[in-house]
Amino acid sequence: MEARATVVGAGMTKFGPHDQPLSELFADAALPALDDAGIDRNEIDAFYLGNTLGGMTENESHLAPAVASHIGLRGIPCQRFEDACATSSSAFKHAVQAVENGIHDTVLIGGVERCTPTTGKETDEMTEIFASATHRQYEQPTGITFPGVFALLTKRHMYDHGTTREQLAEVAVKNQHHGSMNPRAHFGGDATVEDVLESPIIADPFRLMDCCPFSDGASAVVVTSADLADSYDGEGVMVTGIGHATDIVPVADKQGLTETTAARDAATEAYRQAEIDADDVDFAEVHDCFTGAEVIAIEALGLVPDGDGGVAAAEGRTALDGETPVNPSGGLKAKGHPIGATGTAQIVELTEQLRRDVGERQVEDAETAIAHNLGGDTATTFVTVMEATP
Amino acid sequence: MEARATVVGAGMTKFGPHDQPLSELFADAALPALDDAGIDRNEIDAFYLGNTLGGMTENESHLAPAVASHIGLRGIPCQRFEDACATSSSAFKHAVQAVENGIHDTVLIGGVERCTPTTGKETDEMTEIFASATHRQYEQPTGITFPGVFALLTKRHMYDHGTTREQLAEVAVKNQHHGSMNPRAHFGGDATVEDVLESPIIADPFRLMDCCPFSDGASAVVVTSADLADSYDGEGVMVTGIGHATDIVPVADKQGLTETTAARDAATEAYRQAEIDADDVDFAEVHDCFTGAEVIAIEALGLVPDGDGGVAAAEGRTALDGETPVNPSGGLKAKGHPIGATGTAQIVELTEQLRRDVGERQVEDAETAIAHNLGGDTATTFVTVMEATP
Repeated sequence: MEARATVVGAGMTKFGPHDQPLSELFADAALPALDDAGIDRNEIDAFYLGNTLGGMTENESHLAPAVASHIGLRGIPCQRFEDACATSSSAFKHAVQAVENGIHDTVLIGGVERCTPTTGKETDEMTEIFASATHRQYEQPTGITFPGVFALLTKRHMYDHGTTREQLAEVAVKNQHHGSMNPRAHFGGDATVEDVLESPIIADPFRLMDCCPFSDGASAVVVTSADLADSYDGEGVMVTGIGHATDIVPVADKQGLTETTAARDAATEAYRQAEIDADDVDFAEVHDCFTGAEVIAIEALGLVPDGDGGVAAAEGRTALDGETPVNPSGGLKAKGHPIGATGTAQIVELTEQLRRDVGERQVEDAETAIAHNLGGDTATTFVTVMEATP
Repeated sequence: MEARATVVGAGMTKFGPHDQPLSELFADAALPALDDAGIDRNEIDAFYLGNTLGGMTENESHLAPAVASHIGLRGIPCQRFEDACATSSSAFKHAVQAVENGIHDTVLIGGVERCTPTTGKETDEMTEIFASATHRQYEQPTGITFPGVFALLTKRHMYDHGTTREQLAEVAVKNQHHGSMNPRAHFGGDATVEDVLESPIIADPFRLMDCCPFSDGASAVVVTSADLADSYDGEGVMVTGIGHATDIVPVADKQGLTETTAARDAATEAYRQAEIDADDVDFAEVHDCFTGAEVIAIEALGLVPDGDGGVAAAEGRTALDGETPVNPSGGLKAKGHPIGATGTAQIVELTEQLRRDVGERQVEDAETAIAHNLGGDTATTFVTVMEATP
């Protein structure tokens, strides 16, 4: 498949607590991305920024021009996107469309967020703030927050398919292990199934170690047209498909809890554009905000048969040395989840993996990979296909 | 000039206090826009939403899928934009680009916001929330909010060009008069120069009546490709140019206070795309968040010579029966300013004016018009050119 656009630079901060203004934090991802591409700032034609919560956490909105000014971009179109956890994937989609259609030649895309108590907001306040992405009238008044939303979906999956608590724990153990090989991951070290099962209950069936953390962090990529890719230093990785779909909210109005139709629609569209099918996917970064979310996602993406998501983790089929490695970066679970930075962080991992540049967590012989990033009550989903340049 | 895309449907609510959830408020603009186009919901391929403050005012983020669900759109890509007061112009730009490049055939774009005390936030709280769009590190700690930012620019204009308090008041009187003919305006009735000069001081040189209000409201348009425009009921109005530029923030780092280089850059680009110059503009909707902002904007747009913005208002050159009418809708000053809805509300006014469909505030023989929408510390500016279909 031909490239629609090419990633020629990638950078990200370590995820975890950071005590810096958003502009400075973003610079620590963007400047390395520009360096990686070997590009001068004045060659950047437009800037696409994802940030989800800055207004609520730090009274900081209209971030795109402020961040651009801080890193020395001037005069170019700057725009901010917000689609909950899928925020910077939305920025990425629009940027790729602009490059593909000749609107801009070379653009900078990224995401930045601070969610840890360095903002002055404790975890309980952040959980309430973040619940702003659930349905305001039908869900927030019930007191449900995201662990509860994904617990509902996962309980249904356990009921329908016999998925077990142990299988969920295996997802956490796997991603924790992958993350232990990622120096930019929020959490280091390994965990056992027992560690997960004995951690405190958050929202049944989830224990603490089934849940991703709130992190601070930033990620950025430089995208250019396929024609220009060779003129930059950074080894190009092709973007060959992006699917974006939306499902009904609130959760109660969905046709089913575990189908996640937006993910299925987005995957179908992304595979169609890239002229691949799920069998061609060598590895995937998926949105494992909770262990159950990964189980459901890999089914929607066609990486395993429906109902098989938990079994696949328990059998090691989604481990780094398995059939189809899932979340070699450690995923949201171990790498961390700075909301608006997560989408482009997945693109950074795909880029570096497809360049064979990630050391001991390298997926062997990877040529084609996907990123799956969802927002809200499985309401927004982006699926992106990237391929190594031949 | 050929159309890049065509507006075939337009709708908006009255601006002013509304006591409804954002989804319901938006429906009151979107459903009339769909009716105006004569289009069925299932013909809409994508949804582009502008909302600026929902997270901060109502703990409501990730709005695009929720709003889409409420108005019966399902499965299609939905995305939210935030660029301060220029928020829905950003949504409009991206939507027009998508239609122009064949990514989508027919799309819905709109903005919605609630800023009045119906949200539970009083004006002083809203002023602080809205100051989130100034620079977080360099401006917010000083206590400056937007009246102060635009007062600085306007004082400099008075110093450089001899612009007077009376000339500023004439802008308010003009826009108030235009708004008195707009049944959807927040404020009705006329005002005199004395009324303005005797109203309470807000931030010198601005009195209360130099300032636009915080409003609640929503606006929406349906955009389709030029090829498909004839297949819908709504009389098509062509989009022939959109310029988008960004200036440095904070204010202290700008090269000058009254140049508003983003507006000049955006206008140059929009005129170039549309193959027009400022002399071809029959009327303009401009971002008159404060009277001084209109004075500065019409100079940046080339509608009057630099330094002549205040004189032009005093001489009636920008009145409905003047050389180049500015803000026939009443502008932000009289029509109101529901932040995220303002950009597409300008597009609604251009559409209805160019269709000769606005009654007594009709600009005679208007064929070509522009909208100018800015965000933050004159940091983001969009200029859109629209032309009546021949």
